[in-house]
Amino acid sequence: MPASALKNDVFLRSLLREPVPYTPIWLMRQAGRYLPEYNETRARAGSFMGLAQNPDYAAEVTLQPLARYALDAAILFSDILTVPHAMGLGLDFAAGEGPRFARPVRTEDDVARLAVPDMDKLRYVFDAVRVIRRELDGKVPLIGFAGSPWTIACYMVEGQGSDDYRLVKTMLYARPDLLHRILEVNAQATLQYLNAQIDAGAQAVMLFDSWGGVLADGLFQQFSLAYTRKVVAGLRRENEGRRVPVIVFTKGGGQWLEEIAACGCDAVGLDWTVDLAAARRRTGDRVALQGNMDPMALFGGSQAVRAEARRVLDAYGPVGEGGHVFNLGHGISRFTPPDAVAELVEEVHHHSRSLRR
Amino acid sequence: MPASALKNDVFLRSLLREPVPYTPIWLMRQAGRYLPEYNETRARAGSFMGLAQNPDYAAEVTLQPLARYALDAAILFSDILTVPHAMGLGLDFAAGEGPRFARPVRTEDDVARLAVPDMDKLRYVFDAVRVIRRELDGKVPLIGFAGSPWTIACYMVEGQGSDDYRLVKTMLYARPDLLHRILEVNAQATLQYLNAQIDAGAQAVMLFDSWGGVLADGLFQQFSLAYTRKVVAGLRRENEGRRVPVIVFTKGGGQWLEEIAACGCDAVGLDWTVDLAAARRRTGDRVALQGNMDPMALFGGSQAVRAEARRVLDAYGPVGEGGHVFNLGHGISRFTPPDAVAELVEEVHHHSRSLRR
Repeated sequence: MPASALKNDVFLRSLLREPVPYTPIWLMRQAGRYLPEYNETRARAGSFMGLAQNPDYAAEVTLQPLARYALDAAILFSDILTVPHAMGLGLDFAAGEGPRFARPVRTEDDVARLAVPDMDKLRYVFDAVRVIRRELDGKVPLIGFAGSPWTIACYMVEGQGSDDYRLVKTMLYARPDLLHRILEVNAQATLQYLNAQIDAGAQAVMLFDSWGGVLADGLFQQFSLAYTRKVVAGLRRENEGRRVPVIVFTKGGGQWLEEIAACGCDAVGLDWTVDLAAARRRTGDRVALQGNMDPMALFGGSQAVRAEARRVLDAYGPVGEGGHVFNLGHGISRFTPPDAVAELVEEVHHHSRSLRR
Repeated sequence: MPASALKNDVFLRSLLREPVPYTPIWLMRQAGRYLPEYNETRARAGSFMGLAQNPDYAAEVTLQPLARYALDAAILFSDILTVPHAMGLGLDFAAGEGPRFARPVRTEDDVARLAVPDMDKLRYVFDAVRVIRRELDGKVPLIGFAGSPWTIACYMVEGQGSDDYRLVKTMLYARPDLLHRILEVNAQATLQYLNAQIDAGAQAVMLFDSWGGVLADGLFQQFSLAYTRKVVAGLRRENEGRRVPVIVFTKGGGQWLEEIAACGCDAVGLDWTVDLAAARRRTGDRVALQGNMDPMALFGGSQAVRAEARRVLDAYGPVGEGGHVFNLGHGISRFTPPDAVAELVEEVHHHSRSLRR
């Protein structure tokens, strides 16, 4: 599909800090459990992985939020743990418990066995990208994504979510050599994975460093950012005649904003603890900024949703230069009332147009 | 007891940025489940509240870590939820589930009924302070503490721990007036509570804003810091002829360091995501800094524990002026090997003495 067929490129242009008529918006986890139609498709698919591994189902849920809302980008429906699953760790989503690996990576032997997976095992993801692109028919751009090497290492070592990251941090402090080897494998795998998504048609890519913020200052740079940088450095940055922008999002990473902005990415995702005006000053408009409304603001009712949307847009400030992509500061909650999203999208488009007048 | 009877005042002097021969150390939750003797006492007490509400048991566990380690301060064994419990919310620590309130504060009526509790309902805490002071016999100073108004409001509205703070943030966005009323009551209650601890003999006090870091920039200042400031402003700052230093700790608050440091406190607690050298520059030595080793570093083995301790001390830098109190950046984990704490205390004392030579 030629790039000229893209009907709405406001998101891509904003990421490249080109002038746009309004601030584009999409939402992390926009295809998800707050939408009844998503739950219906998931029930048909039987399980989360049944959904993610079937390109037709994945395409169906990817497109659902776009049918409801005037969002400016689609994001591939998938999960950051597809990569370690392809490494043979045995991913399972137990009902109500979140993801879990049957074979976590904890011993020297586990680490030695780890290898970059054959990308053919992830073909279902690339197939989904192709199906989605075809069905989008140029309506909005499609974002591909992956977890950061550190964030997927957390899950690989812990075997599941954690509130203290004790096992992966024990490895970090006691056997940093083992953790560096995992991160190196993850970086290579993530790089191949994202490039294959780009080859299949992803028009922007995002790295989710969801757990970068749990590391100590100094160690974040060594164990997370250094590997994110390796991935970014190897990415194909052009496809179909257009630049493929790269967004890096480190939850809780506001204190390292300058360093993250210098990792080679085009845009930095921010959570709501960061003031966008300060973030913009600190990054000197070298990157676009994506964010950063608290997802919980969507529970405050119509007036609060609109007021918070304006607060975020106003904080970013004059939009003549530098790009802003409106988003939440984290994934949308499964309990969100769908109508609140309609109010949000409407207000972001309306208010950001008025800021440009 | 006259102040002159205090045998080790290194902690208090460091908080006031006076020269000290070495960097003092204590650990958040130092009296806790990682110590077999604590678990033994808790088993005798029957429950967490049985332990906290019995001044003799509370004193016993407060002193346990001091018998093992050369710590420079004791901290009252208690819980930040004693205050809402005294308000009638019905605190219960279900086995393995963490704290839970039988009567959370969610409706307009719930909020209207809320009042500053009679401090007599918290007499067990002040009695514990008196017993501990007597048994400490001037060995080290005793720290009193409370939760910040915002942090206890989180528990009061949610009714238990939360990973998204949905209920309290829904109130914040939809009915900020209700939340402000809760925070006002909490601030007055916390102020009376801490002053009564100081009257009973607490020689320093600490406010734990454990959940301040989950608020959006701008809202942290309105809903957390403003009420912390009210508490700090009303505290008795002198007792037994000595200044009673106030420490404010906002987990995840590194980005607001300058503002927190200006709240009237003597010292700011920091988690491990903050570089101490940068924190010291940003606060211009106007406050002492407390922290900030990752509690998980205690799982790295002897060499890693000692290396991390030196890294934190070296980051703080020259100790001629400005006070540093070594601590973890969060409570010690229940899984911590007790020997690691011995290594840590020894290294902090040894290395910080060598930095002064």
